[in-house]
Amino acid sequence: MQRFFRVKTAQEVFESLGDIKPLGTESVPIRSSLGRILARDIESGEDLPGFHRSTVDGYAIAARDTYGASESLPALLTLAGEVRMGEIPQFGLKRGECALIPTGGMLPEGADAVVMVEYSQKLEQGMVELTRPVSPLENVIRPDDDVKRGQVILKRGTLLRPQDLGILAGLGVSQAEVYLRPRASIISTGEEVVDISQKPGAGQIRDINSYTLYGLCVKSGAEPISLGIVGDRSQDLRSLIESGLSQSDAVLLSGGSSIGTKDLTLDAFLSFDGVELIAHGVSISPGKPTIIARRGNKTLWGLPGHPVSAMIIFEVFLAVVFRRLSGLVGTAEDVGRYIEAELDRNVESVSGREDYIRVRLSHEEGRVLATPILGKSGLISTMIEADGLIKIDMNTEGLYRGDTVQVKVFL
Amino acid sequence: MQRFFRVKTAQEVFESLGDIKPLGTESVPIRSSLGRILARDIESGEDLPGFHRSTVDGYAIAARDTYGASESLPALLTLAGEVRMGEIPQFGLKRGECALIPTGGMLPEGADAVVMVEYSQKLEQGMVELTRPVSPLENVIRPDDDVKRGQVILKRGTLLRPQDLGILAGLGVSQAEVYLRPRASIISTGEEVVDISQKPGAGQIRDINSYTLYGLCVKSGAEPISLGIVGDRSQDLRSLIESGLSQSDAVLLSGGSSIGTKDLTLDAFLSFDGVELIAHGVSISPGKPTIIARRGNKTLWGLPGHPVSAMIIFEVFLAVVFRRLSGLVGTAEDVGRYIEAELDRNVESVSGREDYIRVRLSHEEGRVLATPILGKSGLISTMIEADGLIKIDMNTEGLYRGDTVQVKVFL
Repeated sequence: MQRFFRVKTAQEVFESLGDIKPLGTESVPIRSSLGRILARDIESGEDLPGFHRSTVDGYAIAARDTYGASESLPALLTLAGEVRMGEIPQFGLKRGECALIPTGGMLPEGADAVVMVEYSQKLEQGMVELTRPVSPLENVIRPDDDVKRGQVILKRGTLLRPQDLGILAGLGVSQAEVYLRPRASIISTGEEVVDISQKPGAGQIRDINSYTLYGLCVKSGAEPISLGIVGDRSQDLRSLIESGLSQSDAVLLSGGSSIGTKDLTLDAFLSFDGVELIAHGVSISPGKPTIIARRGNKTLWGLPGHPVSAMIIFEVFLAVVFRRLSGLVGTAEDVGRYIEAELDRNVESVSGREDYIRVRLSHEEGRVLATPILGKSGLISTMIEADGLIKIDMNTEGLYRGDTVQVKVFL
Repeated sequence: MQRFFRVKTAQEVFESLGDIKPLGTESVPIRSSLGRILARDIESGEDLPGFHRSTVDGYAIAARDTYGASESLPALLTLAGEVRMGEIPQFGLKRGECALIPTGGMLPEGADAVVMVEYSQKLEQGMVELTRPVSPLENVIRPDDDVKRGQVILKRGTLLRPQDLGILAGLGVSQAEVYLRPRASIISTGEEVVDISQKPGAGQIRDINSYTLYGLCVKSGAEPISLGIVGDRSQDLRSLIESGLSQSDAVLLSGGSSIGTKDLTLDAFLSFDGVELIAHGVSISPGKPTIIARRGNKTLWGLPGHPVSAMIIFEVFLAVVFRRLSGLVGTAEDVGRYIEAELDRNVESVSGREDYIRVRLSHEEGRVLATPILGKSGLISTMIEADGLIKIDMNTEGLYRGDTVQVKVFL
């Protein structure tokens, strides 16, 4: 047993998981690609918008015909025609001519700028007065101003946002090649755990972790698969893990870290060919009794039974593993979102481990305050009150009231 | 025409929309409730965990039996039994007795604390040595420590996170009553706009706004319905709007703000009984040519055709309207997420309007820098580069390099 006991630091765990690779790819309609990770660079096959386009309602002209124009001495031009939306103008402009043009319209031959309609006056007999000069290209988008042909507009590893869908649409890319979502199997263990549809007897509790982990998977871009609750019969445990390994990229087992069952999880993990132990215990609080193993690109997690501990281990490790499997380009620090806050009371910590403290955020006189929430890691209610987590580094013995902290906000 | 021209400030628009009410409710399984908004307070019907529960592996004892114990003078106790997970101990502890207990186990009668197994030594003949004293309730969760019966644990208007699902599960609440998601119909207008499956001719562009608005709706918790592209035939436009009004809570029309069509949108909106004009133009840049109308609790939006302008108007107004329809409790400022940054160049602005500036974020020597992205609002590529927006208030003429700004980050 002793030979397996390998408490690891977070950094050591990340090193052991550093070669986790992105999954395969699939092609999806771009509306379905929102929030997915692009699996290849997108190079534009054309210029956008592809023609000289007016950005205002007004008169297309040759800029030089407006030079010197003012309210007291307007430029007088002949109206040569009207540009219609979506059509190529069937006329060109000669010296001294202008054309009415709508926002988004295509400039006719001979025009290189547009005067806003506000600075014009339509006269009789097809004449127009313009009271402001414009420079060449004023109020005009050039054919390749938005995107140049051959330009890489989106890179592999990008998380697709609404505007990214927009530029794909603009370029006629109707399907996007994205990485597959990681799949995660979720198993709760423990003789005391009952399904939420049941009324627990004394000594029993309902299955909380299946739900918190389900939510965390969804938020991390993974597809959760709920495999249910298993007691401490090792054969049942092993078959559920086998089912998880066969259909998913990560197996998340929670509970089973008590005297009677903690070895069951480890034994069950190691009973599969090719499974290698990464950590048996991590120097993180709460969350120490965590077992991490892997088989190739798949990982197996024996998470603590305490709901708060299991959630924190997920935030620290699994969120990062899922982003790697998803192909997202970025460092661990990009995962999640940080807000700077001022700690409003002292927090003790033990040197030699990373402490994660639940905090509530509030605003006071322009400052953001982080208030630590005390309470055992078995109490899910402490996470309801919390807005995020702060980390106290291994070599720090605590933080003081007034210290500036980075809060990882729960989204 | 003049009678309709009512440019409004953002504040005036919010005042006109201040009475938008949350939609109806539905009951969903809690796994499906992630990210939804709770429609009623959840009051606990029971204590959680409901029994005295050990938080460690060790020995359940009466704390007073350990007083004075130390490594040099251990307390000597008789092992009275072993607590099994999920079961009520079938024995009680008498003075001088202890029981082996796993993490999560139920304390037997007579025990009020647990000594961690690390501070114990099992002797022969059923005796146990404990080398540390504990206080009453040490390493114990009391029956109502997590949740007290009758306590409101989640309030109406809460956006449900993974831990909220967890506490609902813990209390046996398998279905959650949540507000309906707002539905939004999306229509693109303009003779120059073609479907993304088509190759645009000169003077034409592919439909970008249908995709950016689709993505923004999803991110705001709304269900988008894509109604397609309509040209400038007013009867076609009117039928699409009618279809949108009948099946959704907001109709988002984009484009149609050019000379030829800008009145079409307004006329079409006002042709429906009970539609009231809120704004014909807003003092926001980019995004000024926006038409806002409402019919009861439903809103109609004539968004600018420029993709950037349409997105900014969405972020400023529609994100807030959708949150209100969703029943989320919070102010406009809670919507979205802000990061403090240092502006790295001067930005000009015009007094009398709110300016929204696209910025890119970067980290430099511990500071977060916001770099303004220049470029016309017709260029979707400028939004690809951007990480967020900063607002320049109406009465400010610009911002200086080095100024601290709040960046609304694109999520």
